[in-house]
Amino acid sequence: MSDYICGRNAVMEILKTDKEIDKIFIQKGDLKGSIHPIIAKARDKGIIITEVDKRKLDDISENNPHQGVAALVSSYRFYDVEDILNYARSKNDTVKIIILDEIEDPHNMGAIIRTAEAAGFHGIIIPKRRSAGITQTVHKASAGATAHIKISRVTNIAQTISKLKEENIWVYGADGSSETLYTEADLKGNICLVIGNEGKGLSHLVKKRCDMLIKLPMNGKVESLNASNAAAILIYEVLRQNA
Amino acid sequence: MSDYICGRNAVMEILKTDKEIDKIFIQKGDLKGSIHPIIAKARDKGIIITEVDKRKLDDISENNPHQGVAALVSSYRFYDVEDILNYARSKNDTVKIIILDEIEDPHNMGAIIRTAEAAGFHGIIIPKRRSAGITQTVHKASAGATAHIKISRVTNIAQTISKLKEENIWVYGADGSSETLYTEADLKGNICLVIGNEGKGLSHLVKKRCDMLIKLPMNGKVESLNASNAAAILIYEVLRQNA
Repeated sequence: MSDYICGRNAVMEILKTDKEIDKIFIQKGDLKGSIHPIIAKARDKGIIITEVDKRKLDDISENNPHQGVAALVSSYRFYDVEDILNYARSKNDTVKIIILDEIEDPHNMGAIIRTAEAAGFHGIIIPKRRSAGITQTVHKASAGATAHIKISRVTNIAQTISKLKEENIWVYGADGSSETLYTEADLKGNICLVIGNEGKGLSHLVKKRCDMLIKLPMNGKVESLNASNAAAILIYEVLRQNA
Repeated sequence: MSDYICGRNAVMEILKTDKEIDKIFIQKGDLKGSIHPIIAKARDKGIIITEVDKRKLDDISENNPHQGVAALVSSYRFYDVEDILNYARSKNDTVKIIILDEIEDPHNMGAIIRTAEAAGFHGIIIPKRRSAGITQTVHKASAGATAHIKISRVTNIAQTISKLKEENIWVYGADGSSETLYTEADLKGNICLVIGNEGKGLSHLVKKRCDMLIKLPMNGKVESLNASNAAAILIYEVLRQNA
């Protein structure tokens, strides 16, 4: 489901193509020379860069020369958003989609995919930039659900939300600063949930595009939930209201 | 919140005491001699044993001699179940507790503690045997919630359930083979949820002791949810019904 490309020239070449890169691993410490244009190019493309020990890169490259850099390349075949909508329609079902906007942790990504699939959602939409990819770790954390639900990767989440709204799908963003409790929102009919980044939540632009922002009640001292737990609660509230 | 003890004699000595051990790390490969009584003793006490590379043990021991073994010792101060009940009563609140029966993954454990604290649950009960401990990883995954919710560690979960029932607390076990959807159960009043092991679910004995078993609807191909996602959905259904 994913492969590694190792070494500076190879990584730079793959960065120049349209190939989906899930992550770049850079060796910790004072690297010199041609690593800098690689980092710049990767940043420019919004690819997650992780600093790791030389050991980790030795493992990744199976002890072949890596010059302090490796790229994790996705071989998952993504669907179009249209495929997801057509699939829901073919089942004469109301559309149920979840957008994961910049989820970085592959365990969270996998757990949400698993829950969405179990709940009978029709598809998942992730952005090309600043998101965990559909890697082996995600596949494993999803308990294989990646093989059973359509996943789409788009360039611009805000534009995708506008497109979904034109298709008469109501878009609900999860946002702790909202005034509306998730249980008070009407989650019946064609629906898309939007879950933001683990640390930063939803971006300003994405919030503005949503039809409504909804929050979970927070009765304790911690200020938010783990992203996959929050997503699970909202996904199953959609099921409950539509039962 | 937790410390490592390295080396065969040191680990064997700690195993002979009542000190809470979260996990034993054993070096992969063909170890000889005094490692075997250590493994036997640890198994006997129900401590999770993980095989790791020599590298990992070198890291744990900060490159001091470890002879292929290290123990992760807990320094978390656990509460009594009675402390949890008294705390709920002192707030004039209906009791809300969650039992995590043999949750092994510290990220799941941490996420559930975070969600339970955020929901205003009064306490968490875990077993001494075959459970992740309250380690640094759990602390981190809980986003600090371990410091804000009372956690109790008991010898026998089935006996603890009986004790809770005597205190007029209704005990609901999460079990996929149940006939009752969680949304159809009456989750009002004094309540305790029970979540089982990631792979095996609830043990036969624990199931028998619960007042009722409840399930989540499964509309897709995967057969279960990530344990922390399932727990989060049930915890927030308790809140919804009691709002």
